[in-house]
Formats: sequence, C-alpha cells, structure tokens
Amino acid sequence: MRLALVQTHPVLGEKKKNLKGMARATESLEADLFCFPELCTTGYAMAERDQILDLAEEPEGGDGLEFFRELSESKNAAVVAGFPLRDGARLFNASVLLRPGEVPVFYRKLHLFAREKQVFDAGDRPPPIAEFRGWRLGMMICFDWVFPEVVRLMALEGVDLVLHPSNLVTPYCQKAMFARAVENAVYIATVNRVGAESYVDGPSLDFTGTSQLMGHRGDLLLSLPAGEVAAAVVDFDPKLARDKWLTDHNHLLDDRRVEFFGPLAQDGDLGT
Amino acid sequence: MRLALVQTHPVLGEKKKNLKGMARATESLEADLFCFPELCTTGYAMAERDQILDLAEEPEGGDGLEFFRELSESKNAAVVAGFPLRDGARLFNASVLLRPGEVPVFYRKLHLFAREKQVFDAGDRPPPIAEFRGWRLGMMICFDWVFPEVVRLMALEGVDLVLHPSNLVTPYCQKAMFARAVENAVYIATVNRVGAESYVDGPSLDFTGTSQLMGHRGDLLLSLPAGEVAAAVVDFDPKLARDKWLTDHNHLLDDRRVEFFGPLAQDGDLGT
Repeated sequence: MRLALVQTHPVLGEKKKNLKGMARATESLEADLFCFPELCTTGYAMAERDQILDLAEEPEGGDGLEFFRELSESKNAAVVAGFPLRDGARLFNASVLLRPGEVPVFYRKLHLFAREKQVFDAGDRPPPIAEFRGWRLGMMICFDWVFPEVVRLMALEGVDLVLHPSNLVTPYCQKAMFARAVENAVYIATVNRVGAESYVDGPSLDFTGTSQLMGHRGDLLLSLPAGEVAAAVVDFDPKLARDKWLTDHNHLLDDRRVEFFGPLAQDGDLGT
Repeated sequence: MRLALVQTHPVLGEKKKNLKGMARATESLEADLFCFPELCTTGYAMAERDQILDLAEEPEGGDGLEFFRELSESKNAAVVAGFPLRDGARLFNASVLLRPGEVPVFYRKLHLFAREKQVFDAGDRPPPIAEFRGWRLGMMICFDWVFPEVVRLMALEGVDLVLHPSNLVTPYCQKAMFARAVENAVYIATVNRVGAESYVDGPSLDFTGTSQLMGHRGDLLLSLPAGEVAAAVVDFDPKLARDKWLTDHNHLLDDRRVEFFGPLAQDGDLGT
C-alpha cells in the first residue's frame, strides 16, 4: 500500500480555503490512501456549538464531503479525513472513509478531549472496520489514542491499519503509539495538523505536527516535521499485521487471559 | 517513597549463590521497598519442569522466601521478588510482596512467555493490590507488560505503583512502559536482570538490564545500565498516581466508553 500522510494547517472557520489547501497539498501525490487530520475542513478551536453547526455536514454530504469524494474518485484512492458531522440535532467530531464507488464509512469520536465536550456529542457506536483492496482499515480520532481499548477493539476485529486523524497539542501520542502498535501488531497512521489557534475567550493551542506511520512491530516507518505543512507517501504491506505470533508460543490476542478481564468492560465504582 | 531497584545477575540453578548476591547488593542500601527481578533466586532458562521443582518453594516458604522475609524485617521495608512457586502439583512463575509483620502477598504470572508454557502453570487469579505505608502496590511479571489489560485492571483497583520483576530479552518493554504509565497515570518499576543463559538443548538468552522507574506522566525517573549488575534508590511520591485528571474535563478512567468494551472480556472467534 502507498499511504499518503497529509499534514495540513487549517484556518479556523475557513472551509473553502482549507479545501483548496488540501487540493494543492495532494495535487502531485499518488497513493492508495490519503489521510488528513482531525477537523481538517474547519479548524479546531470552536468554543460554541453554534459556531460549528453551519460548518458541519450531514452524512449525505456538503462541500467538504463532496471534495473528499471527488479526490477519492480522481485519485482512484481511498480518503480518510476528520470533519464535524451533523446527524439531526446531534453534532459529532467524526471522520469519514471514502472509497471509489462505495458508500462512505463514518466514525464518531468516542473519547472527546477537553472543551470538545461542550460542543460535540460523544460517539454512539464502536469504531468500524472496512475493507479496501483487501486491506482492513479502522479509524480513531486524536484523544482516543490514550485509551488502549480503542485499538484493541479494532485488532480483535482484524484491523490491519488504523487511520488516526488528529489535532494533537502534546508530543505524548506519537511516543505512545509504539506500545499501541506493538501490543496489537497493527499499523497506526497518526496524521496531525500544524499551526496555532485561539479560542475566542482566551486559551490558545499549538498543534505539534510530527505525523507518523508506526509499524506493527514498533518500527517508525515515516515521521513528518513538527512545525510545517508537509505530505509524504510511504509504501508498506499492511497485511503483515495479520501475524499476531510474537514467539512460536505467544499469540498477542489468543494469549489474553480474558477470564480475568471482566472489570475492563464494567462501569461503576472504581474501588478507590 | 524510597524505592530500591536491584538489578542482579542470577546464576542458573545456584539458589544459595543468588541469595548471597542479593544480600551483598542490598547491604548498604536503605529504602522503603526493595524490588528484584523475575525468578531471581533460581535463574531463568529451565527447559524442564523437573529441573525447577526442587528449586521452587511452597507459599509457606523455603530458603528464598525466608531470605526475603529476613531482608524485609532487617531493613524495615517491603520486598518484591520473583521466584518459582509450588502449590500442590502446580508450579507458577510467581512474585511475592513481603511487608514487616504482615502475611505475604503472591502474584502468579498470568501471561507466560515462550518456553515458560512448558514448565509453568499459568496464573489462576487476577493481580492483587496490597497496601504498605499508605501506598497501594500491585505486581505483574515480565511478559505481562505487552497486555495493556494487566495494568488497567490494577489501575481500576486503585494501584499507585506497579512492581514489575522481569527477565527481558528485548528492549521493547522499557520503551512501551511510557504508554502503559501515561494511559493509567500509574508508576511502573520494571526490574530486569543482566547476563546470559542457555537452555540445555540450545537457544541462549541475553537479558537486557536497563531497569527503570517510569513516572505516572511518562517521565523516566530512573534508568539503570544495560549490561551490569546495578542497584539504585529513587525517591518519589506514588500518591501522585491518584490524580487521574489529564485536563479539567478528562479523567483517564471515568472517560472510558465501557459500554463498547464488552468484546475485550470475551473469548472466542476473533472475527479474522
């Protein structure tokens, strides 16, 4: 698979400008799959739900989804990108997977970060897995990274490559994806943005770039710079992720002692 | 807490010699807790169950457990160490937590590595949590590290510090404990051995040392050398692990979307 990581610098609220930037960034690239950051059509620092509703799109599509659909068709490639999804009265921090000639697949961020809780609804279904050219693709968004359960759920469903649109403001995630990849033997493409944004009422955010592809054995296959718009294509075989044998005797999934894991799926008193 | 990491070089089958080595290594150290490697009384590369049965000890104790009990009393400190535990006809790769004047607490390794499956029985209960001087201590052993579920289970029970006796032969674990600590906001003391051993029928193992204390926010608080016997004391506050708030809005445990985590505790067809 030739995977393109497209690290952009969205401008808050300027969807048309952001789509143009992504068109330019991908113009000369050829790949099987293009992955963009979280909320790459709109920017991130929206403190009010009203501010984002006009920029959000229904599953049936708006100008953002239409742009990604056209990109997918013209490049004959899959596209993964983050955008605000409107579903009736609800608003999700979402991503879409588009494949030429097929129905879109959506993911609604399960673990909202900080102020996102004030504007978005939390995802209401598990992360989906979808096939493209024989590869099994999954999606998570940004802060989902800190919960090992998210990639584990996808690994149990047979995912080869996790696409991970992000708007990261710390360097923790990139470092932690080593464990996340190794413990599941899956590939993880974290595609982050660059630039700074400020909330209308104050706090500002600096995004950390450093988009990367982490290999299924913890080998860093690609890493983009921290502070610049950048894009690169990396060639690898996602199906290597299907080998879950770490030694002749150890299978990363079958070895799990699930008979003791009940509390991981239970709510309630945490016993502290 | 003053925590002593004691990185030793056990000699295969020479329990008396190994106990003497640990006595020497700790002679001049003062600490609240001494942690030793996995199977530190016996060495590791036992390919046959018979080879280990004579060196194993019942929960009521043998010369190894007696040594650790005396060390605990004389230092007025807790001791954690790995040793082969015999329970009737069963044999476990185990660790013990000894506290002055209190009953010992045992952990039986849940996830056996490679050839260990030929000589040991897999642990038959979840990892225990025990208090000492107000700190909440947990234990896992070596290869348990690759399963995020193990530390997560302990975090849900309120562990502050995970003691992690190990006999590691790769550098993966030390690097992965960054994520393991950060995702749970707990301290993890990985205490590894050095030296080489060979199985009677061939394959040899080189142990990687580099024992470490990983802080609850991913700060490496102590790291010992790769190839030498070494011991060091590190002073830190395990109770900082009780703050699970990563932002004003994000709690590492309460934010988990457990309603979607059912498959993590289910056995059976993995869907691939």
